[in-house]
Amino acid sequence: MNRMNSIRLVIVGGVAAGASCAARARRLDESARITMIERGPDVSFANCGLPYFIGGEVKQRDALAVQTPQTLKEMLALDVRIRTEVISIDRPGKRVRLRGVTDGTTEWLPYDRLLLAPGAVPLRPDLPGIEDPRIFTLRSLQDMDRIKAAAASAQRVVVIGAGFIGLEMAEQFVHLAKQVTLVERLDQILPPLDRSMTRLMEDELRRHHVEVILDDGIASFSSEPAFTCHLKSGRTAPADLVVLSIGVRPDSGLAGDAGLELGPRGHIHVNAFMQTSDPDIYAAGDAVEINDFVSGETTAVPLGGPANRQGRLAADHMFRPEHTRPYLGAMGTAIVRAFDVAAGLTGWSEKRLRAAGHPYRSVTVNDNHHASYYPGAKPLLLKLLWDPETGRVLGAQVTGMLGVDKRLDVMATAIMGRLTIDDLAQLDLAYAPPFGSAKDIVNLAAFTACNARDGLVTPLDAIPDNPEVQVVDTRPAPLVQAHPLTQVRSVNIPLMALRQRLGELDRTRPVVTVCALGKTAYFAARILAQNGFQVSTLTGGIRAHFDPRTPAKLPTPG
Amino acid sequence: MNRMNSIRLVIVGGVAAGASCAARARRLDESARITMIERGPDVSFANCGLPYFIGGEVKQRDALAVQTPQTLKEMLALDVRIRTEVISIDRPGKRVRLRGVTDGTTEWLPYDRLLLAPGAVPLRPDLPGIEDPRIFTLRSLQDMDRIKAAAASAQRVVVIGAGFIGLEMAEQFVHLAKQVTLVERLDQILPPLDRSMTRLMEDELRRHHVEVILDDGIASFSSEPAFTCHLKSGRTAPADLVVLSIGVRPDSGLAGDAGLELGPRGHIHVNAFMQTSDPDIYAAGDAVEINDFVSGETTAVPLGGPANRQGRLAADHMFRPEHTRPYLGAMGTAIVRAFDVAAGLTGWSEKRLRAAGHPYRSVTVNDNHHASYYPGAKPLLLKLLWDPETGRVLGAQVTGMLGVDKRLDVMATAIMGRLTIDDLAQLDLAYAPPFGSAKDIVNLAAFTACNARDGLVTPLDAIPDNPEVQVVDTRPAPLVQAHPLTQVRSVNIPLMALRQRLGELDRTRPVVTVCALGKTAYFAARILAQNGFQVSTLTGGIRAHFDPRTPAKLPTPG
Repeated sequence: MNRMNSIRLVIVGGVAAGASCAARARRLDESARITMIERGPDVSFANCGLPYFIGGEVKQRDALAVQTPQTLKEMLALDVRIRTEVISIDRPGKRVRLRGVTDGTTEWLPYDRLLLAPGAVPLRPDLPGIEDPRIFTLRSLQDMDRIKAAAASAQRVVVIGAGFIGLEMAEQFVHLAKQVTLVERLDQILPPLDRSMTRLMEDELRRHHVEVILDDGIASFSSEPAFTCHLKSGRTAPADLVVLSIGVRPDSGLAGDAGLELGPRGHIHVNAFMQTSDPDIYAAGDAVEINDFVSGETTAVPLGGPANRQGRLAADHMFRPEHTRPYLGAMGTAIVRAFDVAAGLTGWSEKRLRAAGHPYRSVTVNDNHHASYYPGAKPLLLKLLWDPETGRVLGAQVTGMLGVDKRLDVMATAIMGRLTIDDLAQLDLAYAPPFGSAKDIVNLAAFTACNARDGLVTPLDAIPDNPEVQVVDTRPAPLVQAHPLTQVRSVNIPLMALRQRLGELDRTRPVVTVCALGKTAYFAARILAQNGFQVSTLTGGIRAHFDPRTPAKLPTPG
Repeated sequence: MNRMNSIRLVIVGGVAAGASCAARARRLDESARITMIERGPDVSFANCGLPYFIGGEVKQRDALAVQTPQTLKEMLALDVRIRTEVISIDRPGKRVRLRGVTDGTTEWLPYDRLLLAPGAVPLRPDLPGIEDPRIFTLRSLQDMDRIKAAAASAQRVVVIGAGFIGLEMAEQFVHLAKQVTLVERLDQILPPLDRSMTRLMEDELRRHHVEVILDDGIASFSSEPAFTCHLKSGRTAPADLVVLSIGVRPDSGLAGDAGLELGPRGHIHVNAFMQTSDPDIYAAGDAVEINDFVSGETTAVPLGGPANRQGRLAADHMFRPEHTRPYLGAMGTAIVRAFDVAAGLTGWSEKRLRAAGHPYRSVTVNDNHHASYYPGAKPLLLKLLWDPETGRVLGAQVTGMLGVDKRLDVMATAIMGRLTIDDLAQLDLAYAPPFGSAKDIVNLAAFTACNARDGLVTPLDAIPDNPEVQVVDTRPAPLVQAHPLTQVRSVNIPLMALRQRLGELDRTRPVVTVCALGKTAYFAARILAQNGFQVSTLTGGIRAHFDPRTPAKLPTPG
């Protein structure tokens, strides 16, 4: 094939976005001369899998190498240059300057199209003692190897930052029988989620003997007499190994040096076709800022799925601009599992909506992940946020043991389809007893949302601190005796007896109904409202707000 | 509460639609006088769970009784009349005539609103020998008890009809160590699905020693000398127990006798608020015809999910008409599991689109249900159908071992959101290695669909029976040796060697590329197309069309 007039594509970064761009480019143009420049020794590795190799769930290191430089060359006819970095971009001359990481030799490489996919760098704050070799971050296969090696002789591990990677690392260190401390600056784990949606996961970590320290940040490290983490509260945590997982910053120095437009937090600015401010230079992946699907505002979502799709879209626009559909934006759909619990979100959280001043309403519902009578049903908690003007879904969060990913994916698809709570109420999901319920928790959440919108229920996210309020616990009396509601003063009137016992309540004072899941409390609220009471209901029940494992009924005897 | 002026609601049928209507009605109106009439002894039971009690997966019969007449009375203040049937409707007088099933006494019961939720009756064709007491259908708890009792002494079981219930019953009889024969009139199991999507399930049944007889129907039964099923082909199947699961008909006799409008197949006609041709009489559940969500045409979808939502919507319209959103229609989302395999669909199948003359295109893709390197990844097969004019998703089918329900639910939500293949290509699904892939199979299907739309690949559903065609098997040579493609004559040119071996192919003759999954065959097609070949690709690969368990790679040694 004659390659004299073919397009020269240079890709800086050979992992998610870079590898996707290369593969797509080759499929679109056999004649293109594609060069992939990668600073590290590996290309196209599975960076989301790194924690699982450290903890031994993934046994074969090779399994994480999706492609090697050799297989990429063979399959995609790429020129792959590993251990090579791009040190500058000559935009007028349309060439990049390469430097060998090992030998320091430099050379110029011309391009017609350039993709910047440099990714992000883990944050490593400039704290006293931060240079200690026992402090690690996790980004590359080499980081992984170093942590795995250090873990072999470590007993006490401190993980700083309780986001997705922090949780995965905490779990894996428990698998390695380490004594694990998890430190988080905020008053909850999993900062992107609302706090009520993180309780089950926090409980799961503690059940597996992870010491969870919230509301406290790292201040410094000291190595004498023993290596110790000093927290802002004054608390100390001795450690043999520290993993910092407090976030990432875009690796956009090269782009900035080349005069490409950067966003306020240093991300490379791109248009909907992943073009930077120089139309021949594209960027994709963790280093770019893109649009938020829900709000249309600029955001950054350093996740593998968007990176892959952005790299592919960049290649589409380089080779088939007229057929390329603009990038619609990221939804921030994400999930994490630790032990038997999963938690995740899509779209906007309540705290983010509140901070942005965006109007919203929310409900939280409990249900089992499949038909309750079918063996193995596990509880799920789902929070649904919607726009009170349009009814459109703004975001959802789900936590539980099984089926969490499915409900998140349904909600992500609903957000993309701009579905309303009325639509979700009618959604026909796949039902057979091993898979779901005739009314799935997604339908239930939508029913509840419509009820809230229509004034049939007044959902509360907390019990008001008001002595006037009569809190009615609507659970059966034996259940209340076995699992009392200790956090607030309440009177127990079981749903079944409520119609007969209305006289025990004061019609002049507001009532809040509470139960384990929020379901009988809703039923009770309907009875009370129709009998003239001013009533609201704790949405999500005791499970969401006080005890993530409180049972909904007592075990059947025998 | 004064009930003198309250609405009198009579509900005929106390299972899915009827029970949902009653519960919703009570929540909307404490004062309503609600009477539930049920011919059988049970209300609100889990009819989808019946097979699982027969097979012993569900141990407690009580677990299937979601509510009892007593709990419904206590919780919802209903008047529940079991073992009572409605024998006529006096529409001008707005009353129904009741008859006690056991004592034959009759009485009139007035109504302001009437809901008909009579459900459907299993088909029992008028064949010679059909009255044999060893022939069962499954609809009620009593049917279930009878089959369970008969199964105790049966060894050979014949299940007639390989739809959802037939498959569930076949599986459960295997659990009971019966010798099971499954007979299906069509040339495939699971008639609502396209044939290529049923191969894995068929294979799973045979692996569990179910004798699957396709393309053959039941002709008659004889009981001398031994009870025997006679098939249309002349084949015979001896049996100790027969389950007929060949479909249902709406139990709409009462509605028809009352002069309510029925559809062409006897379903009760309703509007989008579930009102029959008499606006004070509503109908919901398996007995009604509703709109198909995709086409807007009239259809009937006798499934639990729609029945529940229709019953609820009918109550909404009775008590809060101004707040009721019309029923959007059913998507026919359904799933079944037998042993380790699940299969299902949402929206329209290819055969249904073809029969209706509706334009469509389709692709079939393979992938793992989560990241391949993470332990436990299981293969999935997904077929996506879309409208070539609009790009909108018309339907999807999925089969595999894990994650089938999730992809069906994403596709159902996509259909509700009227998403296009371009939208699905950008969908942000929840990704972490235990749950999915950075490019989920839903994204992959959409990529492939967009490629087909854009002419980058020409997907084929079968290899053309044309001696001119050069079939190129693009798998690695050792894989081809271990798992040869015996069904068609092919030449093996592994993808990795293709660029070097183009000279072995005749540029004047069409090429079809084939591989295990369809992925390397697509890559190869891109190379060939750009080198001037007329090339198409078997979509879904050998897995979809020839061998549902063919491996994509040889096991790694050691």
